Amino acid sequence: MDKVDARLTEIAHYLRVLILQSTTEAGSGHPTSSLSAVELMAGLMFGESAEGKPFFRFDPNDPKHPNNDRLIFSKGHASPLFYSLWAAAGQLSLNDMLTYRKLDSPLEGHPTPRFAFTEAATGSLGQGLGVGVGMALNAKYLDKLPYRTFVLLGDSEMTEGSQWEAVQIAAHYKLNNLVGILDVNRLGQRGETMYGHDIESYARRVEAFGWETILVQDGHDFQQVIPALTDALNAQKPLMIIARTFKGKGVPLMENLDDWHGKPLNAEQGKQALRELGHATADAPARLAEPERLQPAKSDPQKLEDPAYEAGGQEATRVAYGRALARLGAAHPELVVLDAEVSNSTMADIFRKKFPDRFFEMYVAEQNMVSTGLGLAVRGKLVFVSTFAAFLVRAYDQVRMARYSDANLKFCGSHAGVSIGEDGPSQMGLEDIAFFRTILDSVVLYPSDAMSTERLVEEAARHHGMVYLRTTRAKTPLLYDARETFPIGGCKVLRESSADRATLVAAGITLHEALKAADTLQKQGISVRVIDLYSVKPLDEETLRRAAKETGVIITVEDHAAQGGIGEAVLSAVAATPCLVHKLAVTRLPRSGTPRELLELENIDEKAVVRAVQGLVAS
Amino acid sequence: MDKVDARLTEIAHYLRVLILQSTTEAGSGHPTSSLSAVELMAGLMFGESAEGKPFFRFDPNDPKHPNNDRLIFSKGHASPLFYSLWAAAGQLSLNDMLTYRKLDSPLEGHPTPRFAFTEAATGSLGQGLGVGVGMALNAKYLDKLPYRTFVLLGDSEMTEGSQWEAVQIAAHYKLNNLVGILDVNRLGQRGETMYGHDIESYARRVEAFGWETILVQDGHDFQQVIPALTDALNAQKPLMIIARTFKGKGVPLMENLDDWHGKPLNAEQGKQALRELGHATADAPARLAEPERLQPAKSDPQKLEDPAYEAGGQEATRVAYGRALARLGAAHPELVVLDAEVSNSTMADIFRKKFPDRFFEMYVAEQNMVSTGLGLAVRGKLVFVSTFAAFLVRAYDQVRMARYSDANLKFCGSHAGVSIGEDGPSQMGLEDIAFFRTILDSVVLYPSDAMSTERLVEEAARHHGMVYLRTTRAKTPLLYDARETFPIGGCKVLRESSADRATLVAAGITLHEALKAADTLQKQGISVRVIDLYSVKPLDEETLRRAAKETGVIITVEDHAAQGGIGEAVLSAVAATPCLVHKLAVTRLPRSGTPRELLELENIDEKAVVRAVQGLVAS
Repeated sequence: MDKVDARLTEIAHYLRVLILQSTTEAGSGHPTSSLSAVELMAGLMFGESAEGKPFFRFDPNDPKHPNNDRLIFSKGHASPLFYSLWAAAGQLSLNDMLTYRKLDSPLEGHPTPRFAFTEAATGSLGQGLGVGVGMALNAKYLDKLPYRTFVLLGDSEMTEGSQWEAVQIAAHYKLNNLVGILDVNRLGQRGETMYGHDIESYARRVEAFGWETILVQDGHDFQQVIPALTDALNAQKPLMIIARTFKGKGVPLMENLDDWHGKPLNAEQGKQALRELGHATADAPARLAEPERLQPAKSDPQKLEDPAYEAGGQEATRVAYGRALARLGAAHPELVVLDAEVSNSTMADIFRKKFPDRFFEMYVAEQNMVSTGLGLAVRGKLVFVSTFAAFLVRAYDQVRMARYSDANLKFCGSHAGVSIGEDGPSQMGLEDIAFFRTILDSVVLYPSDAMSTERLVEEAARHHGMVYLRTTRAKTPLLYDARETFPIGGCKVLRESSADRATLVAAGITLHEALKAADTLQKQGISVRVIDLYSVKPLDEETLRRAAKETGVIITVEDHAAQGGIGEAVLSAVAATPCLVHKLAVTRLPRSGTPRELLELENIDEKAVVRAVQGLVAS
Repeated sequence: MDKVDARLTEIAHYLRVLILQSTTEAGSGHPTSSLSAVELMAGLMFGESAEGKPFFRFDPNDPKHPNNDRLIFSKGHASPLFYSLWAAAGQLSLNDMLTYRKLDSPLEGHPTPRFAFTEAATGSLGQGLGVGVGMALNAKYLDKLPYRTFVLLGDSEMTEGSQWEAVQIAAHYKLNNLVGILDVNRLGQRGETMYGHDIESYARRVEAFGWETILVQDGHDFQQVIPALTDALNAQKPLMIIARTFKGKGVPLMENLDDWHGKPLNAEQGKQALRELGHATADAPARLAEPERLQPAKSDPQKLEDPAYEAGGQEATRVAYGRALARLGAAHPELVVLDAEVSNSTMADIFRKKFPDRFFEMYVAEQNMVSTGLGLAVRGKLVFVSTFAAFLVRAYDQVRMARYSDANLKFCGSHAGVSIGEDGPSQMGLEDIAFFRTILDSVVLYPSDAMSTERLVEEAARHHGMVYLRTTRAKTPLLYDARETFPIGGCKVLRESSADRATLVAAGITLHEALKAADTLQKQGISVRVIDLYSVKPLDEETLRRAAKETGVIITVEDHAAQGGIGEAVLSAVAATPCLVHKLAVTRLPRSGTPRELLELENIDEKAVVRAVQGLVAS
């Protein structure tokens, strides 16, 4: 054993001790899944090639340095190893490690950004590689920096389709700065994985998708791990190191055994295991190699132009979305747009044509699109991802997880609702408001005309956090001019009088139905208030409560399911105000038909609104 | 050209004419994506091997016959071709075809079961193969029938990760009765696909995943298509025919050209195209080969045992879920359980141990699990799919689409809410009630103790449709005995008096917090009603309205986001009843901690309920 190996072996030993100590103290966690990757990760972070070239370069005093190498634990349950690595690097004490999984500790059960060295929250399997794709795309095409992105992958999670979305897109974009490290420890949660220890079967598939692979027959032998990492320095393509390892390695009680997934040793077992492992100390923290002090390529922002639409005209909000992106693109050099092969429908195409270098075609793979968007966002980009609202559903788990990464990420779902017409229910987004509302601190915007869309895209760009924007397929009449502002959390009262006997609350396509209904009702001598609820979350509770008080009746109209949408958002807002709230929403099985027929079928068109008001305010 | 070819060529010609006529009349639809697969599908449905062996056997007078071969258009936008095929088979007239995409026509923009020959609704890409896996699993392992399942796939949709989930599991289960037919027409919606016309690149990947492949260099040449289909008769593994085709084939105006995705010809262009194609008639409907008259293997149901729990004990609802499945398994020979590699957590394992032949391990691939479940359900199985509530989010698009297939499909999401504790937010299902409530006619059940769980699993099995059951990780005290019934749409009033000053509505883990709070408040002289809302959708509006009227204040308590959950369901139910509704729900960023600490952090524990009541009913 040469000197380098001895140092790494010592570090590996120290990592094992910390993994056991922290999980035994916590009384939960995944020691076995951590132990299998000890040598792979120790070699990566603290090893170097025979020529002295480090594999991993990172300034722990500046974790956000733009040229740090990136390390993502896609198998987030191996967090005890992740934290132990940073302890070995001198960034956590043993006492810190013993706070693992405790309420006020940043060392959560699965890594989150509460711990400074976490690049992105993981723990829902099969997402880390997609995040890595975003970081690698950023290095290669946007920031033009030499940093590399490493992703530790579990073998169980390779069955997630999202992995193969990430694998294919990495090959497509020739990301030779992306390295996957696949820890094939054979055992999943419930038993053996689909391919067991057959590392060749993984290699065949990854290579068929256009990657290089390096096989490591014994992932616990530094004599094999270091050469693999050395070879990876010269990758011409995205590269995956595929290593045969053992779950629970180093602890006979659990090594390579069933029924030890996600289970810590108890205090007694822990003591025994530590005795068997022998004493370990970190005499001095292991040093990480310094990154080069390079900064991203940057271009200067230009002045933001105002949107221009002709009064009295009409335009689809999805077109305004595309135009707004193109307009904002000049003012925000960090703005990047992703789309899932439907940019000529979401109209993100308008941005692509103007800024082709900042548009990435993500093909029909929505899950990876969102993870990649997250990776770009974490690297400082202002990212908009778009597809049909109906297909964005595909990526809701990635959306959920992006929230736990504190992501600054913008989503656009187009073709919302039954009003898309003939294409039928599979293409109709009807659950999107409900889902995005559940995301903590999310913003949900739903513009009704082109001008408000343009302004709301600006607001989305300005707001740090998760923003969802819902757009409509059909053209809608222009309601606002360029002087109007649309702050997040606001609304627009479009019809109001002291004689109002009911309030109509709507957004998007149904706002226009509500306005027509209000005009019809006015002719019948019934005044109704009309509110454009362009900001569904947060919403303008004050204005809604005032309307509740003053008119006593609120009717919500939405091209969305009756649950979790505008209706229930309004109900929540006025829950403390005595008032009758009546919901009009999509409540029949949608189908193909003309937009008008479908609005009528679902009782969310002008006539249905008129009927509802007449029924409720009948003297 | 031999005689068989001439007949198929004539059919192909007829299909092209119908595709153009129907889409031109509709003024929308996807003629180009239909035209590329004309020969592949005509050959499949109406062709035979040189030895006279038909490729496809189906009794059109009995579309549900258990031994019919199955044909799924995963590229659902090619519906004009799908309907034209059935027209060629004598099942639709030209007049029927001209109703395409009209409101009262069963011929929707994307196939739905409103058309009798649709196996499952498609239109969200990348789902048909997973459905096919379910049908092929059924044939091979359950019904033990020789029918085969064919799935027409688009090249664009091969980028969906869900495809690779289906591909891998088909190989794992050795489904040599499943045939994919990949229509590589080079063009996606927005332009060229990732691999263009490189059919070898698809073959490499599909083979690496363990399938056989057959390449067809010209998918419009019956001399190539028929031999490929003949070879497919002898598949030893799942098999994919990968054919190079041209989008818009046969219509010079659109053939192999950009910007013709999803666009029909206008009336003038349509006339010209039909002139160029020349006249086509179906002198006689093309005959489909008869299926063998075989019926599924069946076993007799046994009597359903009653669940047994000791009064005063406690058990986790997830354990009761597993026990209920095992109990129902004997009474329902058609009951099948799928799980995504966490059956020892969801406790579906209890069923697996008793009925290993009716349990299918779906590995960590939730999307395909749901599609496969749908395929099994369509073939008459009573299917329960389970994973963590947090990870079921991964398959929400498949859930959404299953609804449009009128599926009889049951979902169980375990480990709901922050009360799972130390594992942290990535593992906490907090959006599930909101999402499942949006699904039209869905049933959402949320039991609080083992006994009600057992009964609700029975109810779920009895109910035809989509049912979601939410279970809890922790043990909870037993509340009910075996005599109690739990009808869907009901609730249980657990505390009630004429002096009630508020009503607590809860389910699952928080019901127990509400009960403790009620007892504490009672000691302070404040009587409150407590309702176990085990049926969140539909819910017992009458009892809730009565509580609203009688107590004036409702406090909902849920381990779920504040949007779309129990709180808003109750708000909707009492929207017409003057009453103050106050929601307690998860409103802070969740993290790792003990279950008790997290319930406290989120203000959904006993103390928070007591505080809320005190604040609201203070005289």
